[in-house]
Amino acid sequence: MNALKIAFIGSGNVAWHLAPALDGAGHSIIQIISRTKENAQKLAAKVGADSDTLITNLLPEADICIIAVSDGNLAEVVRQIPYNRCTVVHTCGSQSIEVLKGCSENYGIFYPLQTFSKNRAVNMFEVPIMIECNDPNKLDFLRKLGDSISNKVFYANSHERLQYHFSAVLVNNFVNRLFFEAETFLSENNLDFNVLKPIIVETAKKVLELSPQDAQTGPALRGDKITLEKHRQLIANNAPLLELYDFLTNRISNYSVR
Amino acid sequence: MNALKIAFIGSGNVAWHLAPALDGAGHSIIQIISRTKENAQKLAAKVGADSDTLITNLLPEADICIIAVSDGNLAEVVRQIPYNRCTVVHTCGSQSIEVLKGCSENYGIFYPLQTFSKNRAVNMFEVPIMIECNDPNKLDFLRKLGDSISNKVFYANSHERLQYHFSAVLVNNFVNRLFFEAETFLSENNLDFNVLKPIIVETAKKVLELSPQDAQTGPALRGDKITLEKHRQLIANNAPLLELYDFLTNRISNYSVR
Repeated sequence: MNALKIAFIGSGNVAWHLAPALDGAGHSIIQIISRTKENAQKLAAKVGADSDTLITNLLPEADICIIAVSDGNLAEVVRQIPYNRCTVVHTCGSQSIEVLKGCSENYGIFYPLQTFSKNRAVNMFEVPIMIECNDPNKLDFLRKLGDSISNKVFYANSHERLQYHFSAVLVNNFVNRLFFEAETFLSENNLDFNVLKPIIVETAKKVLELSPQDAQTGPALRGDKITLEKHRQLIANNAPLLELYDFLTNRISNYSVR
Repeated sequence: MNALKIAFIGSGNVAWHLAPALDGAGHSIIQIISRTKENAQKLAAKVGADSDTLITNLLPEADICIIAVSDGNLAEVVRQIPYNRCTVVHTCGSQSIEVLKGCSENYGIFYPLQTFSKNRAVNMFEVPIMIECNDPNKLDFLRKLGDSISNKVFYANSHERLQYHFSAVLVNNFVNRLFFEAETFLSENNLDFNVLKPIIVETAKKVLELSPQDAQTGPALRGDKITLEKHRQLIANNAPLLELYDFLTNRISNYSVR
């Protein structure tokens, strides 16, 4: 596709990764708008864009405006966008396309399903990007934009996108919580969370090849009540951890350990 | 260390990875004993060993016998081992060293903390191996054996090892269960679990660098009740999944979504 002029609203983790990827693909990032001036400037410097703190200053020459703000702030941001010939997309997993209605003739979704941190590089070509457009005939425009930075661009309607977003909570937010529970338990016992890192990585890599059902192992699956009871004794004085252990053990084993 | 003559009891996932690693490090795997003849023969062929189905046929020339059977079968296997000059170790995370008492003058633990599958290669040098010995003066023998295949060999007593084993259940068994829940939900909705694979791998890799506390994100942590409620509506007709969602959301957010 021809190089586009792109404006960003937001300078958080998503913009921090999307803007440089699009810049690297030959597009021009012309503006970064963020209410946090310093963040806007930092990201703008990275991609050679102007920075601004006011959404009302959105440059009229932008071909597309990418809103990369948190779900909770999206509606307020949309209200402030000057009606514009440019296409407006948001990058949220859980927000319907309808939230953008009225802010432009063409609007849609550009949702990268990944966990982004400013200090971690991500291979954008591997990141699934879900697209949706108010005008199905204009979907191709978003598809080409996605294809310029990722090999995994596909259409999903707002309901499907919410279902993927929900699933991502299970495999990211909830999984990370289990890492946190393990780290807390080990550190309370003066043991080293680093010891778990190889099995953490292998557990993830395993489901790239095996189905989660085939990859499931452990005492709960085997119905190994002796080991389950040893674990329960170990955490008998930690009621919240015991509750978590019993909950997920019962989920795997389908019989009660209590 | 000098090359050792090693016998294995068990031909499951652990033996399947340990035996070739030790063979590759220059030791001689002289015997694989397994009640499943075919499995014993397969592994024996892989490492140039004899195979047998009877524990009572344990070769007397072995320097060390490595018991790599499931936790539940360990005590029964130990009962059958002929009293022998060779060192006997087991590879279980949850079983005390005491289970080996009486089977040899020297006995101990050689526990690799990793999830092994026959059809997946694992970099053994990255696998933590916990060692323990009834005679502390003989611990060095197990340390050298471990060092020949891994860079992460360390002493842990039986209680510490059980604590690590418990933690591994959290970050492997329970995490994989969340993968299963996500896959089941997506497949019930004709959506594609493959879309989640990049975020699954990145979630694991992230805690190699960030603490789980710093890596935590998502609607539960933000207290984003609107998104939480959207997710809950999405799975309102799936009571077990809703129960799981509420349980882990409350754990992260420390306030009730119900």
